[in-house]
Amino acid sequence: MTYIETLGSNAKAVESVIATASTEQKNKALKAIAEALIAKTDYIIEQNKTDLENAEKNGIPKVMQDRLMLDAKRIKGIADSVMTLIDLQDVIGTIDCGTVRPNGLRICKTRVPLGIIGIIFESRPNVTVDAATLCLKAGNAVILRGGKEAINSNKCLCSVMREALESISMPPDIIQLVEDTSHEAAGELMKLNQYLDVLIPRGGAGLINAVVKQATVPVIQTGTGNCHVFVDESADIEMAVNIVDNGKTQRPSVCNAVESLLVHKNIADKALPAIKAKLDEHNVEIRGCEKTAAILGDLVIPATDEDYAKEFLDYIISVKVVDSVDEAIEHIRKYSTGHSECIVTNSLENAEKFQRMVDAAAVYVNASTRFTDGGEFGFGAEIGISTQKLHARGPMGLNELTAVKYLINGNGQIR
Amino acid sequence: MTYIETLGSNAKAVESVIATASTEQKNKALKAIAEALIAKTDYIIEQNKTDLENAEKNGIPKVMQDRLMLDAKRIKGIADSVMTLIDLQDVIGTIDCGTVRPNGLRICKTRVPLGIIGIIFESRPNVTVDAATLCLKAGNAVILRGGKEAINSNKCLCSVMREALESISMPPDIIQLVEDTSHEAAGELMKLNQYLDVLIPRGGAGLINAVVKQATVPVIQTGTGNCHVFVDESADIEMAVNIVDNGKTQRPSVCNAVESLLVHKNIADKALPAIKAKLDEHNVEIRGCEKTAAILGDLVIPATDEDYAKEFLDYIISVKVVDSVDEAIEHIRKYSTGHSECIVTNSLENAEKFQRMVDAAAVYVNASTRFTDGGEFGFGAEIGISTQKLHARGPMGLNELTAVKYLINGNGQIR
Repeated sequence: MTYIETLGSNAKAVESVIATASTEQKNKALKAIAEALIAKTDYIIEQNKTDLENAEKNGIPKVMQDRLMLDAKRIKGIADSVMTLIDLQDVIGTIDCGTVRPNGLRICKTRVPLGIIGIIFESRPNVTVDAATLCLKAGNAVILRGGKEAINSNKCLCSVMREALESISMPPDIIQLVEDTSHEAAGELMKLNQYLDVLIPRGGAGLINAVVKQATVPVIQTGTGNCHVFVDESADIEMAVNIVDNGKTQRPSVCNAVESLLVHKNIADKALPAIKAKLDEHNVEIRGCEKTAAILGDLVIPATDEDYAKEFLDYIISVKVVDSVDEAIEHIRKYSTGHSECIVTNSLENAEKFQRMVDAAAVYVNASTRFTDGGEFGFGAEIGISTQKLHARGPMGLNELTAVKYLINGNGQIR
Repeated sequence: MTYIETLGSNAKAVESVIATASTEQKNKALKAIAEALIAKTDYIIEQNKTDLENAEKNGIPKVMQDRLMLDAKRIKGIADSVMTLIDLQDVIGTIDCGTVRPNGLRICKTRVPLGIIGIIFESRPNVTVDAATLCLKAGNAVILRGGKEAINSNKCLCSVMREALESISMPPDIIQLVEDTSHEAAGELMKLNQYLDVLIPRGGAGLINAVVKQATVPVIQTGTGNCHVFVDESADIEMAVNIVDNGKTQRPSVCNAVESLLVHKNIADKALPAIKAKLDEHNVEIRGCEKTAAILGDLVIPATDEDYAKEFLDYIISVKVVDSVDEAIEHIRKYSTGHSECIVTNSLENAEKFQRMVDAAAVYVNASTRFTDGGEFGFGAEIGISTQKLHARGPMGLNELTAVKYLINGNGQIR
């Protein structure tokens, strides 16, 4: 048995313990973990320092070093997040629907855990705790594989969580870390069909594509967002300005940020200058079509096909003036990554058409795309935002970390 | 663009047409297809003959030749199945749940089609029509890849369906067939992530494993069933006899048939001879543990570990005498494929424990495992039975061929 197989086998051995644990037991585990994180703050910071020193030595960019860094405040934040999971309603055992068949069979579709979840992520060590505890609350065992830059922090955080489980007599193997950070070990994890029920990659497009290509275990793709706002001819211009500005500048590095603006030709003369004036406050670079340049002037950089397809994650926006809601929908169909799309309009007909025809996880009328988020949707927590259609689409909370089981009760029925 | 990419691109071009088609339009298409199948019966039989002649020439077993064969009665049966889809309620556009957030955002989780579905199947040509029409009713475009033994039948059936779509002014590319039956073309289809939203293999374990290993497109695994019946000490023996007999002999070649029998030691003396007497009517071969042999006599073939793991799909059953419901659950945990499992009992406590602890798509108390079926569950039709946990588990009907989309309506909300 290889090292990775051993982790799988360990998880399998405790899978049913966590799957059938009561809500009270799971909440007790979460509390123990949160308290242990606070109690071990100094130890965690010390272990994290090793990662930070290695990062400095290896010339890792400052912005990445900041993501790696754990201090008392951040550890408190992680522990607080764990505590919030306690208040979330346990979905395990709830009944989605049920029926009594003509032959008297009673069929109930109930919520059960997915089983064993693999999480592959990059260098943010907070993901280690967030992902593990969310999986635990949903009754799953988890195998975590974080980036090698954070290996000392991750080892330490995992050992703290495992000790917390042991302290309340729960098996520590509910949470395991892949300590071998080689590509080979990650590759093996992606093909561990015998043990893993699902694999969730969390990170940039490169990581996600690599996992999708290599994995034979079912993957939930958390994805990139090339999100559009379409300002229809009947839009309230002030609302459009605020929605575009919020989507683009409130937090440009996230997947639900706006990357592209489409404006109806009949409102472009008024809307574009107003939007530009607001975006100028953040020095947003505008890459526009010819009509955009004709309205906004020569400072507009000509937009290429690549610009329309790009998730900038930066203070850059692509802009196109379109003839109709149909052209906007057509453009979005061509370039969208299926994350979040928005129309600003006062036309009921166009709002309905846009929501029906645009194929994305979240389709907005008159609200910022920044709301595509588990917290904002009322899920309490999220493990990521799915841009695939299978199993889960949009923000994934506790419910999306579960599966179903049919319970059928009879009194001797045969076919 | 390769041949397979062209099929993908063709499907993409018509995806939104079928996704946004009204229930009336979809039902009109189904009716046109059913009528065309009847009208073209002679032509279909003629084309099918070529496949049958090739099968004979290539020495394909008689039982496989029978699966390939289409006559007027079978074609009528296929057309009738299409007609039954008309009466099924359209799930597209229905609202799963909805909420109004404190900031006034209204969020609705609605049902939308999956998009473009790839189906890879073996030699039964009826699957061509069943799968295509079920996908169509759920608003999906479909790319079918059948076995090469049935290529002439499949080409003919697809052309009949495509002409029917054209006759009512719907784009024929909603239904496409991969006419290149090479492994290379199938391999390319499995990696067609740019266009396919999901891939569903239908066939034996070999086909399914090959697809799971090769595919980068998300797969729904329709699976093998090593289904157990556990006869608890409090079981009604006559009920147990009927449930085991029905599960084993009513149709041994299907995935929800019973493959393994577990009997509590306190009832084994009475239950085993009664079950054997009934199974003897179908000359069922018994492969049992030592205790089974001690009760039933020397004709019992000693069961190996492999026997307990095997899906016989034949008049063979493995048998084990166990000490408790816990041992039965433990055995099932070790050997189950997660399809359908049954306890026959009069103990409420053991029934509840069995349903809670056994991890399978369908867990029965006092009813035959043969009921795990879309028709028997009241779904009206099914595309297969999923044994994976992601997206769908158990019988997959129209609802399982859909995804969700969040529609969010606001009046200018920003974060």
